[in-house]
Amino acid sequence: MALALLAQGNGLHPAGWIKTGGRADIANDVGYFADMARLAEQGRFDLFFVADTPAARTDNLDAWSRHPMYMNTFEPIVLLTAMAAVTNHIGLGGTASASFYEPYNIARLYASLDHASGGRAAWNVVTSSNDYAARNFGLQALPPHARRYDRAREFVQVVKALWDSYDDDAIICDKQSGVYFDPARFHVIDHQGEFFKVNGALNIARTPQGHPVIIQAGSSSAGRELAAETAEVVFTSDDNLDAAKAFYTDLKGRMARFGRRPDQLKILAGLSPVIGESAQEAEDKYQALQELLHPAVGLTRLAQDLEADLSDLPLDEPIPLDRIPKSANLTKLYFDQITRLIREENLTLRQLYQRYERGNKAIRGTPAQVADLMEEWFTAGACDGYMLIFPVLPDDMRPFVEKVVPELQRRGLFRKEYEGRTLRDHLGLDRPASRYATTLAQAG
Amino acid sequence: MALALLAQGNGLHPAGWIKTGGRADIANDVGYFADMARLAEQGRFDLFFVADTPAARTDNLDAWSRHPMYMNTFEPIVLLTAMAAVTNHIGLGGTASASFYEPYNIARLYASLDHASGGRAAWNVVTSSNDYAARNFGLQALPPHARRYDRAREFVQVVKALWDSYDDDAIICDKQSGVYFDPARFHVIDHQGEFFKVNGALNIARTPQGHPVIIQAGSSSAGRELAAETAEVVFTSDDNLDAAKAFYTDLKGRMARFGRRPDQLKILAGLSPVIGESAQEAEDKYQALQELLHPAVGLTRLAQDLEADLSDLPLDEPIPLDRIPKSANLTKLYFDQITRLIREENLTLRQLYQRYERGNKAIRGTPAQVADLMEEWFTAGACDGYMLIFPVLPDDMRPFVEKVVPELQRRGLFRKEYEGRTLRDHLGLDRPASRYATTLAQAG
Repeated sequence: MALALLAQGNGLHPAGWIKTGGRADIANDVGYFADMARLAEQGRFDLFFVADTPAARTDNLDAWSRHPMYMNTFEPIVLLTAMAAVTNHIGLGGTASASFYEPYNIARLYASLDHASGGRAAWNVVTSSNDYAARNFGLQALPPHARRYDRAREFVQVVKALWDSYDDDAIICDKQSGVYFDPARFHVIDHQGEFFKVNGALNIARTPQGHPVIIQAGSSSAGRELAAETAEVVFTSDDNLDAAKAFYTDLKGRMARFGRRPDQLKILAGLSPVIGESAQEAEDKYQALQELLHPAVGLTRLAQDLEADLSDLPLDEPIPLDRIPKSANLTKLYFDQITRLIREENLTLRQLYQRYERGNKAIRGTPAQVADLMEEWFTAGACDGYMLIFPVLPDDMRPFVEKVVPELQRRGLFRKEYEGRTLRDHLGLDRPASRYATTLAQAG
Repeated sequence: MALALLAQGNGLHPAGWIKTGGRADIANDVGYFADMARLAEQGRFDLFFVADTPAARTDNLDAWSRHPMYMNTFEPIVLLTAMAAVTNHIGLGGTASASFYEPYNIARLYASLDHASGGRAAWNVVTSSNDYAARNFGLQALPPHARRYDRAREFVQVVKALWDSYDDDAIICDKQSGVYFDPARFHVIDHQGEFFKVNGALNIARTPQGHPVIIQAGSSSAGRELAAETAEVVFTSDDNLDAAKAFYTDLKGRMARFGRRPDQLKILAGLSPVIGESAQEAEDKYQALQELLHPAVGLTRLAQDLEADLSDLPLDEPIPLDRIPKSANLTKLYFDQITRLIREENLTLRQLYQRYERGNKAIRGTPAQVADLMEEWFTAGACDGYMLIFPVLPDDMRPFVEKVVPELQRRGLFRKEYEGRTLRDHLGLDRPASRYATTLAQAG
């Protein structure tokens, strides 16, 4: 079983920063994140991961001023490099948008992180899902969903080709002959695509992992296709077991068409645990947190993920079905979950924003109950591991590391010590051979 | 006097990696750079600086395979963040091209580094000067010089505006009211320019330095104008005192038109010292290095900086004047220096590539002689300090730190201890007030 930590500020709950027993002013403090990364490493986690969007929210400030997540955050590559310096084993993954970066820059940044961390880098390819980001990069609004995925697909192709610029053994440093690298083991690409023209070679040696690990999180059909073709880790977020199993089967089933084995992609289910001495204590903890959710924040989250503003509706009456938009342009998974809650449960607006948990399976319970759920989903073939999405950091994480991880270890579901050196080693992913190495082997 | 280290691999001489007494395979090893950064900090340097271009050379591989500098190198922001973790005082500067990045991404990356380092970040704004880079970013060749500077100027304006998105005291973290930041102290820009449209706010708090320090190195007229308007550190490279004084006077004289004081910009002269027990020993050391310069490397460097290929000419005959191009499109300073050597000294091709030192003042001598030169230029008003460009790293740096720095300290020219906390403190640069703070003060 693989375990990843979503290492976002004071946690994923909008009120996490209010509820935390620790400091709230930590967004710009690498020392805070260092403590968290070390705690994750103490828990033998595979991955320390940071989500991202290249934008601050610029309207609804009454809501967003209460919700630091998108508003004040390190560029992931900087935070991850800082974490590389203070940890020894844990993988380091970050999000960067294929819609708003250049392939050459991304290829270099993540290759550099892979070198700096001794083979622990992972890049989460996203296409961005908000117009705030688009407006920071010369656009009025995001391009359509399909178009963004077309670009992302080509972007990943270019990045991976650049990562093979040098063969693994190209840097020879032969002081006798004065030759630093062997030109025969150096490759220039000439990519002339729909979105990018890149004619060059990456100016950094092939990395410890060959390629940094590729992560994706798309649940749409286009997202699944891209993941089946290129992803090595997929974050998913389903709140029921059958849906998770169906997703797992569907995604792994798509891989053969791209010549890939199912075990070349690890599916990590989003799991949001709150742990107590008793289930009731955990539930009380969570409810105390929900009570801190300001209506402005609740309504803004809904508006964003439903792609419709419901704030003119009365808080305590059911939501008219004709207020549901036809389809999602942003994150389909969130959209579907909200519309399902509206259609099937006849909730009031207040109930809806308090019930909506942004996609992830939530559990409030004892360490054994959390371990039971994790074992159940894992053995049922719903996931290869979990992305831990703690509502409050570091508060909710500490009991997980101290009590749930040992329980998983006792059950033989999770490592007791790191065995390999790289993130690929931890996850059981192959180190990709260079595309040129393959050609040579075939020729030879 | 300010001191910066150009921390490039095994040094700036193409044969530095061959000559070094240490390891040559260090390009991807943050540990090597960490030792160098600590040595620079032991020498009380202001700045650890990395140059960059977003490209590998893709032709003339017989030459470039002998010259690691452009071929295998960390993306600067990653290396600098790694250095932030292992140092406490020294400034951390890196190059990023305004031609091939997006303002929002650069604003975030360097703001993040400024936070991660406690106020030690500096961004060197370049426009790139090679077509290899252009071809990695969808172009056949670089845009014309003037056009690149127009873009750079607008790029810097946008980045600085984004750095003021939050006022210094905007992040209030008031757990009682549930308000994380004060919306009244948060500012959205709506830049609609010739090159960029950015309508948003940076998603990170204002940084310890207010703005990371802005560095530039342009010596062309367009470069000087941009520097006079926006730069806080300028790297210059003249090999004679009068030219350096003229540049110093000219550049500082341009600042008043932009409402700036001369002391708001520090000019650091490129200085390439080789130190020996005697001047002869230093000279011998340098000549031994020059003998390692492969003709292919020497000719390729000339071709690049002269923007003309002379490799068809015989090595040991003078160069016909009609082989000099009319004007420079890339780096004017290098071009002018080569053409001056050809015109005035009637050198053979071999003599030319062995004499050409890429712009910087070189000195081979004893620690006292090096200190004398540094004192002379500094007191003559030719510079505010130096960018140390050691031919071989770390070999040439160690005697500088151990013998020249103490000599400069004895003469009262250089600090004995760090006094401030940020790079601005070290350099004696003001911390910029937010553009909105000024408005408030005027209004209030």
